[in-house]
Amino acid sequence: MNVTIIGLGLIGGSIAIELRKAGFASKIVGVDKDPASGETALLIGLVDELASLQDSIERADLIIVAIPVDAARLEIPIILDAIMEHAVVVDMGSTKHGLAKVVSGHEKRSNLVLSHPIAGTENTGPSAAVEGLFLNKVAIICGKEMSSDIALKLVEGLYETLGMRVIYMDSKEHDLHIAYVSHLSHISSFTLGKTVLEIEKNEKNIFDLAGSGFESTVRLAKSSSSMWAPILEQNSEVISVALGTYIDNLKEFKSLIDSKDKEGLTRLMDQANDVRRVLDGIE
Amino acid sequence: MNVTIIGLGLIGGSIAIELRKAGFASKIVGVDKDPASGETALLIGLVDELASLQDSIERADLIIVAIPVDAARLEIPIILDAIMEHAVVVDMGSTKHGLAKVVSGHEKRSNLVLSHPIAGTENTGPSAAVEGLFLNKVAIICGKEMSSDIALKLVEGLYETLGMRVIYMDSKEHDLHIAYVSHLSHISSFTLGKTVLEIEKNEKNIFDLAGSGFESTVRLAKSSSSMWAPILEQNSEVISVALGTYIDNLKEFKSLIDSKDKEGLTRLMDQANDVRRVLDGIE
Repeated sequence: MNVTIIGLGLIGGSIAIELRKAGFASKIVGVDKDPASGETALLIGLVDELASLQDSIERADLIIVAIPVDAARLEIPIILDAIMEHAVVVDMGSTKHGLAKVVSGHEKRSNLVLSHPIAGTENTGPSAAVEGLFLNKVAIICGKEMSSDIALKLVEGLYETLGMRVIYMDSKEHDLHIAYVSHLSHISSFTLGKTVLEIEKNEKNIFDLAGSGFESTVRLAKSSSSMWAPILEQNSEVISVALGTYIDNLKEFKSLIDSKDKEGLTRLMDQANDVRRVLDGIE
Repeated sequence: MNVTIIGLGLIGGSIAIELRKAGFASKIVGVDKDPASGETALLIGLVDELASLQDSIERADLIIVAIPVDAARLEIPIILDAIMEHAVVVDMGSTKHGLAKVVSGHEKRSNLVLSHPIAGTENTGPSAAVEGLFLNKVAIICGKEMSSDIALKLVEGLYETLGMRVIYMDSKEHDLHIAYVSHLSHISSFTLGKTVLEIEKNEKNIFDLAGSGFESTVRLAKSSSSMWAPILEQNSEVISVALGTYIDNLKEFKSLIDSKDKEGLTRLMDQANDVRRVLDGIE
């Protein structure tokens, strides 16, 4: 199978590593609008060759789109226009509802699978690609009824090759749940990073004291703004409500601290402790 | 050397593991107000024997205090009253200024070293103790001029045995910097956990989508309230100011999201990205 990966960053590059390891593709063609990223991807062996978007999609059996969500919304209709009759396109972005609406009337809509592999790191670019990124994680396929059985089967096979468990959601539902769990975490972390850099003037202290929990909590604040600004824009309504609740809860926390209400603080932290049970997955 | 560890939790237990491995102590005596924790610590070999506070400190050369900060403030003056002339007491708590004031006039103040090893996990109790917890991390010694040279040397040797780099700070300065870097991170994480549990009614979604960054950002929300409520109370003034700035920054983030201001969001996230450079420690 001839596979084209559009966007040779963390996700696209890490997929390339797994597909090559599994012998999933006879050839992996890479497309990236940044020539330097393309060259790096070629140099470190992620892809077999580089091509232009138009040239690559005309001969691809499977086209994996792993680019920022604003670009995906613009490019995917154009990609669908140009693919072969049997080709399958799969999108990897972190927002789905707007894209689903944009492509809903496209005559090749059934060639497209909207999906979201729930995996990542704070790093970007082809050199951030790593083996095992997707192993035992979850991939979401959205609006499966809009995709052909053949397209679905191919994408399910792709995720199986990556070692992922597939779950299914409506696009709107996806954007809601991912706002709660992923997007809010990123905002919390970005803002923690910005705040600590503002109030702690001595950078050496941040470095020395980072082992106290800061390092892990702020990890996501290293994420790329060119990936995240369009996500936050596209999913702004849902994120805004979730962020409002987060701010209200922080105000409550602050008021308990101001009144030195140890009982209230204990109650609140005990509630938060319940994430341990939820993340352990014990029913 | 006869070492007593008061508080057989994550920190006390992990210290015991390292001291035993290094042959630092001829005997490690454990004290814990919770009999079950004491029994566990004895059973898994963290300590050689259990004793009452009074009994153990009368015969200890080094007394390591690793208990919640409210208990430490009450117990340390009593411990100093009872120790042998040459014995050294070292405190491990996450707040320092209040304790420094409480002990400042004690006739055995020079036997005491106030310190804070910047290491931990979200887990608690003797069974959470792990090897290597302190390796290559930083330990802070506060108000070193108040401790005798002999006491300082012994505690510096202790931290060297744990594999830590020692830095020195004034107690008040410690509480300020640790509020910025550690205490604020914990509040951000506790509140993220509480918020997501509130708004995401389907726990299965939290579990499935946790790989999206939630899991690492919320890790600290699993921390023990009995450890954290007294820390937040004792350091409330400094924490409140830092938390206020965090809330203000989140409000700014929310307003940029509400107005779909991609440029503003990009600028803000690019500022946050600077934590990467700071945490890499490149000067």
